[in-house]
Amino acid sequence: MIVDNALYHRGKRVPLGDGDDQSLGSARVPCDPGDFQWIGIHDPSPEELELIAGTFDLHPLAVEDAGDSHQRPKVDRYGDTLFVVLKTLWYVDEQDAVETGEINMFVGHDFVVTVRHGQGIDLSGARRDLEQRAQVLEHGPMGVLYAICDRVVDEYEKVGAALEVDVDEVEESVFSPARTDDSSRIYVLKREIAEVRRAVLPLREPMRKFAMGVHPDISAENATYFRDVADHLQRVSEVIDNLDGLLSTAFDAHLARISVQQNEDMRKISAGAAIVVVPTLIAGVYGMNFDTMPELHWTYGYPYALALMAGVGYALYLFFKRSGWL
Amino acid sequence: MIVDNALYHRGKRVPLGDGDDQSLGSARVPCDPGDFQWIGIHDPSPEELELIAGTFDLHPLAVEDAGDSHQRPKVDRYGDTLFVVLKTLWYVDEQDAVETGEINMFVGHDFVVTVRHGQGIDLSGARRDLEQRAQVLEHGPMGVLYAICDRVVDEYEKVGAALEVDVDEVEESVFSPARTDDSSRIYVLKREIAEVRRAVLPLREPMRKFAMGVHPDISAENATYFRDVADHLQRVSEVIDNLDGLLSTAFDAHLARISVQQNEDMRKISAGAAIVVVPTLIAGVYGMNFDTMPELHWTYGYPYALALMAGVGYALYLFFKRSGWL
Amino acid sequence: MIVDNALYHRGKRVPLGDGDDQSLGSARVPCDPGDFQWIGIHDPSPEELELIAGTFDLHPLAVEDAGDSHQRPKVDRYGDTLFVVLKTLWYVDEQDAVETGEINMFVGHDFVVTVRHGQGIDLSGARRDLEQRAQVLEHGPMGVLYAICDRVVDEYEKVGAALEVDVDEVEESVFSPARTDDSSRIYVLKREIAEVRRAVLPLREPMRKFAMGVHPDISAENATYFRDVADHLQRVSEVIDNLDGLLSTAFDAHLARISVQQNEDMRKISAGAAIVVVPTLIAGVYGMNFDTMPELHWTYGYPYALALMAGVGYALYLFFKRSGWL
Amino acid sequence: MIVDNALYHRGKRVPLGDGDDQSLGSARVPCDPGDFQWIGIHDPSPEELELIAGTFDLHPLAVEDAGDSHQRPKVDRYGDTLFVVLKTLWYVDEQDAVETGEINMFVGHDFVVTVRHGQGIDLSGARRDLEQRAQVLEHGPMGVLYAICDRVVDEYEKVGAALEVDVDEVEESVFSPARTDDSSRIYVLKREIAEVRRAVLPLREPMRKFAMGVHPDISAENATYFRDVADHLQRVSEVIDNLDGLLSTAFDAHLARISVQQNEDMRKISAGAAIVVVPTLIAGVYGMNFDTMPELHWTYGYPYALALMAGVGYALYLFFKRSGWL
Amino acid sequence: MIVDNALYHRGKRVPLGDGDDQSLGSARVPCDPGDFQWIGIHDPSPEELELIAGTFDLHPLAVEDAGDSHQRPKVDRYGDTLFVVLKTLWYVDEQDAVETGEINMFVGHDFVVTVRHGQGIDLSGARRDLEQRAQVLEHGPMGVLYAICDRVVDEYEKVGAALEVDVDEVEESVFSPARTDDSSRIYVLKREIAEVRRAVLPLREPMRKFAMGVHPDISAENATYFRDVADHLQRVSEVIDNLDGLLSTAFDAHLARISVQQNEDMRKISAGAAIVVVPTLIAGVYGMNFDTMPELHWTYGYPYALALMAGVGYALYLFFKRSGWL
Repeated sequence: MIVDNALYHRGKRVPLGDGDDQSLGSARVPCDPGDFQWIGIHDPSPEELELIAGTFDLHPLAVEDAGDSHQRPKVDRYGDTLFVVLKTLWYVDEQDAVETGEINMFVGHDFVVTVRHGQGIDLSGARRDLEQRAQVLEHGPMGVLYAICDRVVDEYEKVGAALEVDVDEVEESVFSPARTDDSSRIYVLKREIAEVRRAVLPLREPMRKFAMGVHPDISAENATYFRDVADHLQRVSEVIDNLDGLLSTAFDAHLARISVQQNEDMRKISAGAAIVVVPTLIAGVYGMNFDTMPELHWTYGYPYALALMAGVGYALYLFFKRSGWL
Repeated sequence: MIVDNALYHRGKRVPLGDGDDQSLGSARVPCDPGDFQWIGIHDPSPEELELIAGTFDLHPLAVEDAGDSHQRPKVDRYGDTLFVVLKTLWYVDEQDAVETGEINMFVGHDFVVTVRHGQGIDLSGARRDLEQRAQVLEHGPMGVLYAICDRVVDEYEKVGAALEVDVDEVEESVFSPARTDDSSRIYVLKREIAEVRRAVLPLREPMRKFAMGVHPDISAENATYFRDVADHLQRVSEVIDNLDGLLSTAFDAHLARISVQQNEDMRKISAGAAIVVVPTLIAGVYGMNFDTMPELHWTYGYPYALALMAGVGYALYLFFKRSGWL
Repeated sequence: MIVDNALYHRGKRVPLGDGDDQSLGSARVPCDPGDFQWIGIHDPSPEELELIAGTFDLHPLAVEDAGDSHQRPKVDRYGDTLFVVLKTLWYVDEQDAVETGEINMFVGHDFVVTVRHGQGIDLSGARRDLEQRAQVLEHGPMGVLYAICDRVVDEYEKVGAALEVDVDEVEESVFSPARTDDSSRIYVLKREIAEVRRAVLPLREPMRKFAMGVHPDISAENATYFRDVADHLQRVSEVIDNLDGLLSTAFDAHLARISVQQNEDMRKISAGAAIVVVPTLIAGVYGMNFDTMPELHWTYGYPYALALMAGVGYALYLFFKRSGWL
Repeated sequence: MIVDNALYHRGKRVPLGDGDDQSLGSARVPCDPGDFQWIGIHDPSPEELELIAGTFDLHPLAVEDAGDSHQRPKVDRYGDTLFVVLKTLWYVDEQDAVETGEINMFVGHDFVVTVRHGQGIDLSGARRDLEQRAQVLEHGPMGVLYAICDRVVDEYEKVGAALEVDVDEVEESVFSPARTDDSSRIYVLKREIAEVRRAVLPLREPMRKFAMGVHPDISAENATYFRDVADHLQRVSEVIDNLDGLLSTAFDAHLARISVQQNEDMRKISAGAAIVVVPTLIAGVYGMNFDTMPELHWTYGYPYALALMAGVGYALYLFFKRSGWL
Repeated sequence: MIVDNALYHRGKRVPLGDGDDQSLGSARVPCDPGDFQWIGIHDPSPEELELIAGTFDLHPLAVEDAGDSHQRPKVDRYGDTLFVVLKTLWYVDEQDAVETGEINMFVGHDFVVTVRHGQGIDLSGARRDLEQRAQVLEHGPMGVLYAICDRVVDEYEKVGAALEVDVDEVEESVFSPARTDDSSRIYVLKREIAEVRRAVLPLREPMRKFAMGVHPDISAENATYFRDVADHLQRVSEVIDNLDGLLSTAFDAHLARISVQQNEDMRKISAGAAIVVVPTLIAGVYGMNFDTMPELHWTYGYPYALALMAGVGYALYLFFKRSGWL
């Protein structure tokens, strides 16, 4: 579905006739030098992609990738056109889960085609924001690329921050005196961190290249902007690596905790057993059938025996209490 | 066994006389510039290899490797001829196992020799498909190399996807409340992942080189195709690394689970023991032989004692139930 | 808040009119060649930053970063101006915790702007010290940069030393015979080490570059000074890595300790149980109702039975004592 | 001890006068261009080494290394002479152990000196084989170097294969239901793998250099041969790394197994205890001394009680059997 | 304290006037080309360092480092002077501990200043030995540097060998049937290995550079000598890495051992308990008060019951013995 289609002239949007999708998509708007056209598509049908590929002369391998929503993030160059795959990430609070989407972009001299798969970042909003920032739009298609990368990476940082909160929770739970089974929580978090890492890591290298200005399409001024993106990517990936390390340590601590708790349980159980077993021995003694057992004939023999049992039990209780077993 | 032998002229198959294997194999078909011959062999005898090595002037070390089915994947250059070893992988559903085969290729200016060992990818089918795609065949021997690499790597992705399903199953099993012994399952999966890694990793470097066009036999257009292959290889290896990491974490969680379950068992056992041992103490008390034990003479002393035992047992049961030990 | 503002002429401070902040900040002091102005700000408001950015023509992306106190350490070049982000670390003895602050610096030809966020290093003190060392100040803005990096990295070394003490304590606790739950302590230390690592690691690369003199702003003599800084950074990061490794080993030892202690507890409990259970068996025997049980009719049967129980109990006690179970 | 000494002329052995060792060793045979002399020594005395060093003008540091049998594998160049240290490995079936020896080689323009320490590869056999392969001998001293490297690395592959069998055995033992203590076996295997790795790893880099033909003594044709060696080294090191990883995983599985078995033991013990303890309670009940206990006066009270105990015991047995505790 | 001070002329020691320290230290002896002066200092006071720094025009930063005995090993170049920091290691048998000292060296065109901190290598002995080896001394200051590096690294190898013995002992202890608590021993060894690694690792890179002759002060012949040092360093670091890996594996095996022992203890305890509890049940049975219990009236009822108990106990003992629980 073609979502939007506009011409940008000196950083300003030039309205295009609001025809039906097909006509919009297939018609390449003639451009003055420096102008560019930006088409936004969402979950395109193969035919729509075909049409646009024809209009902008896109490479078939890139178009094939663009139709598939399970690409890995990358920046490829086909002739004069850059093909960029970005993973979008966002954090769904209700489920404490990281969701992923995908944006594919074709960036040429005088056009940008953005293809969004699934949910995720709101590209229309990004476009509206960008249309307010003429100084970025003036950089042409690479400005659009920067703006979208920037927005996507900002989302990564939010996801990173949300995961930091989750890790803090896990940490608290691991070290709380309560008996918690944190291993599945830690597992899920590690899985999500791996997800984020797979979105972030492959982008670092191309963004660093953009930032160093080694890419022919990147001017010095543009490079500065991409350095900002590369820097945020780096920060996200450090946060993520740090969280991963903390989770591993927290998991080890969790294991230690289980062992310690088992030990405590064992002592508690043993102490409890002792409190029952020693009086049982006393009862056994007074159950013996010797002819001469003076206590048996005492008037208060029975209460004495009960008291002895209770007393021994209580003494044991105090003893174990004091030595920390109960 | 020589499986097929054909001449390709401008991307079209030119039928060759359907003689017996020997004559086919030994005869090098004269080629116009741009034409090439493609011979496919399966589990060749040393004599067949010898014959073909003579015809196409192949290097003895490469021929020796081609006769052996336990090579590691690699791309070597002997004079003008590329020698490529690929591991083929496929997933056998019935056994949840990854099987491996091997394809060796000699790629020269005007010929391709493919040597298949064991089962695995269907090269005849690959040839038939390729004969439908003249635009790839027109690239000559390197086009054939691309097409086969592409097919082999596609299989890797299927294997990766199948392993992802297996890992999901293991994960579910680890975190299910049922007591499962997942360690051998995890071990087998890790072993298979190592197998896939050994097929995938050594190919990444040469494919990346092909993709960057640094190889003298690779034209810019061809390089684009190989970039696609390199990209899929990269994706497979990321999937595999991710699965490996998840399995390690799952294994740790499995260990934690065992400890937790042991702890739960211990508490359950202790609670059960308490329910029996405390009534035993009561029985012991009323088995004592004191002269004066009023309860012994009560009319309902015995039922009272039994009720006391049952009551204490039930109270303990409730207590342990409430504190989560039972 | 603008903290200080001065002109330095041949390594000497030239007093500037002590007007209000705004006027100070916005006025760029005309400089002779070789002179430079150094403005120090603390927790600046956006307006103050805006003002200074205008005065010294700072890049908006750098200014945006400077206003945010959660940057990662880095050295970026915007046109002729270096933008440096340093994390300050200090160790708070009362809480055994590492605290972090941030210093941002803009280093131009003839000016330095230092922006401090939060607590941490005392920049005014650094300035006063530096004003005593004309030979460093003579190097101009890069001399200031060196002096501040040096001071920041010195603090890292102090933090490293404090963490070494903490790790020694943990070590002692792990290997002491007392039952200690060191896992949370180890976790916290690992977390702090990760904090230090995040401050130290990203700086190593740019400092090494400064030290090798590859940076255009760095003279050979300056490079020697930065090599000193790079060297200290390297030392800190080695100390930190070493501590991290020791903590991991200590944690493993802690786990082993827990297992060993559980084992010891189990044996102690079992020995205790045996001492009670065997006399109970004896009591059971003399509680049997056989017609002919000679002991029952002995005059000293009862004392004999009690002595037998005590004797057996004591023998068991000695036995377990000797075999190390008690 | 000088083992053999011969001149090779156009790939053919030229018999030298069969004098005593000393005269053979000290006399440098005059060579036509392209001819070379090959002296083989075994466990040389310092004097023999001295003599040969003088004859062929070997560097004192290399000679010192050659006299010592605990060098690490390496390829060093002293002037025009290559000094090569190879570790030989072989697998001793009776002890399931990897043994190591050492070969030092001096490779000059027109001579090869091979120094063997300890047991290991049979250099005389290698020489006899090589004398059959004139096409390798024709490459001169580098041909000899190739032939020996090839043979040494072939032995590595056999060791790798033997270790694979060992790891398979360990694996089977770990996952067998029998209670095996595999940790020492795994430890020994890991130790042997480390041994192999120390022989293999340092050779990879120089062999790769030989294979890439960057070494001045290596012709293009020779490089092809060394590529074969480098390739086998790579394969061995991948096999070894894989085995190491599998052993680590197997060890973890072994640990999990121990825990699971302990858990099973605990349940079995508890079930057994319950079967004894509950009848004991019953016996306790009928040992109580209440005046009115009807069962005591039943004619078949006693058999009834015994039957009750047996029945309860059997019921418990069935219950635990069914719930998998026994 | 200035220990020695001499001039070396063509590899021979030229006696200098044996005045007091101060005069010796401050006087720079006039040198012929190729001659050099070597001053050895031990635990210098700041004033001594100051004096010497003035005499030989040493860089203040290097002098500051030389006065501090906690530098990391490094090779720095200040103008024409090399500043080298070496850690000396030696093994103290009585305490099974690795001790560290430090040597700082200033190596100029025509002088060497060696500064020793703490105990460690005997530099005077090194000097005496070196004075016997004119061919090394003739290389001038770099020859002295080589000779000292060589001696220091030789000590590393001895330490490595001593640690190998320690690891063998730990290994034996871990796998001995005795119950040993090896974790603290392993921890201490790992700590010492880390110490050695910190001495060895930072030196590898500069020594390799010296060995490759890329350093301007190093002649080709000298480079050969440094290659020897670099080679020994490499060997030490491989030994150390190997020991570290073995210790980790040994620790894991130790953990497994603890678990296995706990399991064995548990079974032993359970078997012991069974042997007591079953006779207790029998005693309970014959303690019941049924009117009709024939055994009670047998003449030999009591001995029969005792025999039954003993028999059942013995049968259980045999059963557990045979099934390996006792």
